[in-house]
Amino acid sequence: MNAPGPAFPATSPDQVFDWLDTEAAKRGEAGLTRRLHPRGPSSDELDLAGDDYLGLARDKRVAGAAAAAALRWGAGSTGSRLGTGSTEVHAELEHALARFCGVQSALVFSSGFTANLGAVTALSGAESAIVTDKYIHASLVEGCRLARADLAAVAHGDAAAITHALATRRKQRALVVTDSVFSVDGDLAPLDELSAACRSHGAALLVDDTHGFGVLGEGGRGAVHEAGLSGAPDVVTTITLATALGTQGGAVLGPRRVIKHLVDTARSFMFDAGLAPGSAAAALAALGVLREEPELPGKVLTAAQGLAAGLTAAGLRVSAPSSAVVSLPAPSAEAALTWAASCSEHGIRVGCFRPPSVPDGASRLRLTAHAALSESDVERAVKVIAEVAPRGARS
Amino acid sequence: MNAPGPAFPATSPDQVFDWLDTEAAKRGEAGLTRRLHPRGPSSDELDLAGDDYLGLARDKRVAGAAAAAALRWGAGSTGSRLGTGSTEVHAELEHALARFCGVQSALVFSSGFTANLGAVTALSGAESAIVTDKYIHASLVEGCRLARADLAAVAHGDAAAITHALATRRKQRALVVTDSVFSVDGDLAPLDELSAACRSHGAALLVDDTHGFGVLGEGGRGAVHEAGLSGAPDVVTTITLATALGTQGGAVLGPRRVIKHLVDTARSFMFDAGLAPGSAAAALAALGVLREEPELPGKVLTAAQGLAAGLTAAGLRVSAPSSAVVSLPAPSAEAALTWAASCSEHGIRVGCFRPPSVPDGASRLRLTAHAALSESDVERAVKVIAEVAPRGARS
Repeated sequence: MNAPGPAFPATSPDQVFDWLDTEAAKRGEAGLTRRLHPRGPSSDELDLAGDDYLGLARDKRVAGAAAAAALRWGAGSTGSRLGTGSTEVHAELEHALARFCGVQSALVFSSGFTANLGAVTALSGAESAIVTDKYIHASLVEGCRLARADLAAVAHGDAAAITHALATRRKQRALVVTDSVFSVDGDLAPLDELSAACRSHGAALLVDDTHGFGVLGEGGRGAVHEAGLSGAPDVVTTITLATALGTQGGAVLGPRRVIKHLVDTARSFMFDAGLAPGSAAAALAALGVLREEPELPGKVLTAAQGLAAGLTAAGLRVSAPSSAVVSLPAPSAEAALTWAASCSEHGIRVGCFRPPSVPDGASRLRLTAHAALSESDVERAVKVIAEVAPRGARS
Repeated sequence: MNAPGPAFPATSPDQVFDWLDTEAAKRGEAGLTRRLHPRGPSSDELDLAGDDYLGLARDKRVAGAAAAAALRWGAGSTGSRLGTGSTEVHAELEHALARFCGVQSALVFSSGFTANLGAVTALSGAESAIVTDKYIHASLVEGCRLARADLAAVAHGDAAAITHALATRRKQRALVVTDSVFSVDGDLAPLDELSAACRSHGAALLVDDTHGFGVLGEGGRGAVHEAGLSGAPDVVTTITLATALGTQGGAVLGPRRVIKHLVDTARSFMFDAGLAPGSAAAALAALGVLREEPELPGKVLTAAQGLAAGLTAAGLRVSAPSSAVVSLPAPSAEAALTWAASCSEHGIRVGCFRPPSVPDGASRLRLTAHAALSESDVERAVKVIAEVAPRGARS
């Protein structure tokens, strides 16, 4: 076979990625360059940035379980979950998660990201409609893009718009996809209304409860449980093991037939290495802590409400906290970055969210409350964050 | 707003997932149902199914590093890599990977799956063409589907077809995507020819070296290193930490500007929790073992060649092993499943690949060789696999 001549002239290998420099320059001008800031094992900074809401990542029971499992089972699972990568620890964790949340069955993935990809794609497809809130987590968005379904992404927090999209869809099969607690602002989806809309229109409901699980609901069973939807035959929940449970991984919770379907068809499950046994064992131990200390989740909400009240009293615009997350709009991406850096200089680590993590013009600080935050921690954080706030962050 | 009436009648919540049962019945009839088989911490079975090629998952240096890191750093990274989820262990691992492979920079992901999603999508996009071998790994396929690029998936192992697709593309920017060692059959991509094609046509080359890294190349530096392409300014490599390194996670290796671009734009990096510190520390320790025992990778190839020679001598059709993987075609999906089950009853665990892991009609056993396999292990495995082979598996 004679290959035709090049459609585009050969460039030097050194030039093939020149376009990346152009893109980097554009991001630099817009204040959208990211840098990794590797941290040490401990810090004098007060952490209002991490997602370890219950402080379980460093809890001796949880970290100890991770260590013991690594020694007993090895550092890795040695294969895909359908090969050699399913251990008794994975099975025990899946049983425990299902029992804790009151669902028939659970399936553990290597991350929350892959759990969301798998759940969305396997439960929709070209013969389906998907209706989503436009502010769902990026991993759900990627799942929707992969799904080949008819896709409608409607206004944020608008159950009527979801209902309208369901009512006007062209495909019989339909899946409504939402976060329970939206990751950036921490506000709640109207799960009652969404479930009612689904039931009026023959649709299934998929809820990412990453930021609800371990914080909301009875003993931290999550927002789906709190809404009375755990165990419902038409509801599927995803969580990460990397937020309240303090380790790594993700899970899908739901009816037994949904989980069987994922085992057979979810590509991000079938074609990925299994979660490390240490991470599975840590999640199992963290679930045990939650059962033993059902008062722990409430402390997160108390701390978040304390932060929000203090920051509001200091004159800042603050989201109303219904979860661990407290959000503070900044006037620009650069202002958000400077604000976060100033907080850090004063010993407070906060999250800084800029596009594409948020829409253009919606850069903000994102604070996360933790169960171990004391009243004096909250007071100190409020003082610093307010003192170094940029103009335009005040109400 | 008055929502319109339902386009489709409300069904009972119990019926919303009835379609899953229909799908399950179809898979059952075609012999395509999967079941999880959780394993214990040790087994009397001879493992020819796992991807822990060098036996490092259970190595005390590696598992011990995972355990120590869990105790020192916690069971989880506590956030995204751009938040609190980057520790000094992640940074050290990235430096060590880059140095070992002779590239400028490396970036660690939570899995090989997310590393591939991130690399493909961030290095292509709507303004790009992607040209792939049609047998690339499922995670690369998902990346291509997400990329919104002009996509050409050409015949397997056909460098001329890749060249033709590059020459006839409509977009100036182009990315060739391939496995180095194809995951199912273990055959090698013609990296020399693919690189030459890329350089003649101004394209970049992305190679998934998951099954080459730790097995091929000088001291296990992988197929890209063996081809003299490590450190090339137009080549990007992805690996998992879950095969030869015996833990969990993935990494992208390449020019510094590529890695910076991924940090700023790869959605499966930005919006995923960081790898657990224990898994990062285990990978770092495994790299240390590779440096100390550069003869380890060669043992894998020797074992694979022994398996293939024995099975060929026993009259079976066998792939020519150029990596750890030895592949044996089966006459049908059901026959492959029965064959694998019979091997297991005789104490040999083998991989069983059926659609969608392979194309329709291409079901097979997949054996993976390990550095620790003795000659008598190989003899025993050959004897069992040949004895229980179905009709139609013979040459």
